[in-house]
Amino acid sequence: MSSLLPGPNSLVPFVSVDDMMRLLIDIGTERMLCELADAIEEDFRRWELFDKTPRVAAHSEKGVIELMPTSDGEAYGFKYVNGHPQNTRSGRQTVTAFGVLADVETGYPLLLSEMTLLTALRTAATSAMVAKHLMPKNAHTMAMIGNGAQAEFQTLAFKAVCGIQRVQLFDIDRHATAKVARNLEGYGLEVISCQTAEEAVQGAEIITTCTADKQYATILSDNMVGAGVHINAIGGDCPGKTELHRDILTRSDIFVEYPEQTRIEGEIQQLDADHPVTEVWQVILGRAAGRTSDSQITLFDSVGFATEDFSALRYVRKQLKTRPFFTNIDLLADPDDPRDLFGMVARKEQKLVQGLV
Amino acid sequence: MSSLLPGPNSLVPFVSVDDMMRLLIDIGTERMLCELADAIEEDFRRWELFDKTPRVAAHSEKGVIELMPTSDGEAYGFKYVNGHPQNTRSGRQTVTAFGVLADVETGYPLLLSEMTLLTALRTAATSAMVAKHLMPKNAHTMAMIGNGAQAEFQTLAFKAVCGIQRVQLFDIDRHATAKVARNLEGYGLEVISCQTAEEAVQGAEIITTCTADKQYATILSDNMVGAGVHINAIGGDCPGKTELHRDILTRSDIFVEYPEQTRIEGEIQQLDADHPVTEVWQVILGRAAGRTSDSQITLFDSVGFATEDFSALRYVRKQLKTRPFFTNIDLLADPDDPRDLFGMVARKEQKLVQGLV
Repeated sequence: MSSLLPGPNSLVPFVSVDDMMRLLIDIGTERMLCELADAIEEDFRRWELFDKTPRVAAHSEKGVIELMPTSDGEAYGFKYVNGHPQNTRSGRQTVTAFGVLADVETGYPLLLSEMTLLTALRTAATSAMVAKHLMPKNAHTMAMIGNGAQAEFQTLAFKAVCGIQRVQLFDIDRHATAKVARNLEGYGLEVISCQTAEEAVQGAEIITTCTADKQYATILSDNMVGAGVHINAIGGDCPGKTELHRDILTRSDIFVEYPEQTRIEGEIQQLDADHPVTEVWQVILGRAAGRTSDSQITLFDSVGFATEDFSALRYVRKQLKTRPFFTNIDLLADPDDPRDLFGMVARKEQKLVQGLV
Repeated sequence: MSSLLPGPNSLVPFVSVDDMMRLLIDIGTERMLCELADAIEEDFRRWELFDKTPRVAAHSEKGVIELMPTSDGEAYGFKYVNGHPQNTRSGRQTVTAFGVLADVETGYPLLLSEMTLLTALRTAATSAMVAKHLMPKNAHTMAMIGNGAQAEFQTLAFKAVCGIQRVQLFDIDRHATAKVARNLEGYGLEVISCQTAEEAVQGAEIITTCTADKQYATILSDNMVGAGVHINAIGGDCPGKTELHRDILTRSDIFVEYPEQTRIEGEIQQLDADHPVTEVWQVILGRAAGRTSDSQITLFDSVGFATEDFSALRYVRKQLKTRPFFTNIDLLADPDDPRDLFGMVARKEQKLVQGLV
């Protein structure tokens, strides 16, 4: 009967939402954000190794479903992610995701993981890692505009990775702001809830925008952005959805993950297709200038890229060796004789008939 | 504590390999092949509705990993599939696969399923469904060249859907042929094991080629193919991998799933990019001619297309209502307040600290 149990090649470790929460709690949120930022930066340093392609998107009236594959030649990863702004009306998440890491040598999956939580973590870690390279020296205050599901993760990543000590919150929904302020209690941050976006950006060296409306919006207008700030623009991330007034873009030096994708999805969809942008990996490797003056406005036009998910999945897989928050699932067929898939079923049927399984 | 159990929106039905075997056994192989053929044909009839794109392939020296997405506007499906011919050396499958069906309205996955077995079934069902429209009348003998994992499924699909009564097997590996002959015992077919490919095609009205070498090969040479046969060419399915001599192609009327993909991956990669081919869906809808004479050679240059996987996933999901061979897995985050992903983790941590979970 043992031959009817799933063989070793059939099992794939699966990290459920519950497992991911336990992993995050076990490691600690700020530590995990720091380690994710390091893992993501490490892969940005290997940028040229990766197979890169804009994500494969299926758009509908209600939202988008995307597949984001990449590979470094040894491992292959992809993420399934949706974006449906109206989902909150039915008690669902705007963004949910899961992902897979696989072995390029055999094509066999090595890990299946929830990525709703992991995407929130990697997005925040990426933002903070990039800001570390671009923000003004000794920045200590961040404006956090948009107090949805990303806001706490963004704030804690900027605390842990960039050393910010104060966050100024604003959302058109006061309940959202209250939720973030409550959740951030006890983390040693000064948390200020603001009545207007103008108030939130006062004195902030870093401005993070992360709202969810699927439309062209002006969350930040030009007069709100003073010299020298770093803007971390998260919410402009699909065609037809932007957050910044165009005039801010033309005043800023713009940094992007992967121009081919950002020009379709990011804030820069408002600009000409040849508007100059700098790739983040080039700044990290010292091949392109980052911040060059105190008065310069730096803008990270973040849309999220497949390598960030790949880095996050690799990080999680590594953690599972010492923190076994996963279950094995029987995802792959593993017949005794690999050419005998049919026989595997036939033998199963015999055993079922004999009442042995 | 009930709020810490995964909520209803977090659970996705998962069909493991074991579940798929039980489902197949419960329905019966020939019945399931017939019903899959019907489901696939039904979606070919709705061809114009589908979002179609060539699969997204990541090639390496050892093989390929592909994502195959599609959508009919209501449901979205994708399959992950690898092709690694050398995998059998390490006791692994050449092809493994899994797939997901999702709701376009919310972007939430509705089903995660193993697809190694399901791909074998849908490939065979597609071949037989297409042959039903193209084969010579009253065909009763099929040559089955290549006796690997697909061979039994192909043979039973042609028996169940097209009514063939006799199969003539050939493989360069006699053990493979012996395996297929053994597995097909008791299905009411006349099974002939042949010493050569020439012997296998003698008197066959249908020739199926399905070998696994990743190279240009000549499984069928021109003089082996007589007038009037239908060729079901399965194994030529990625760049650099073909099975038929070019001269056969120029003598045949060629039918394909999705020309944009087949010209890259199919037998017709040997021909000019403008060589005329007919799309299968047009034949099924009566918009293009299929077989028009007894002497014509019809060739289905099959590479597998995303809609076939979509049809198979939809079929499986429907079956689960009355045949509950699945388990629910906690794949999606489902916080009480959808904007409060962070709070979901914080509440989990409190409970863990209190020893309540």
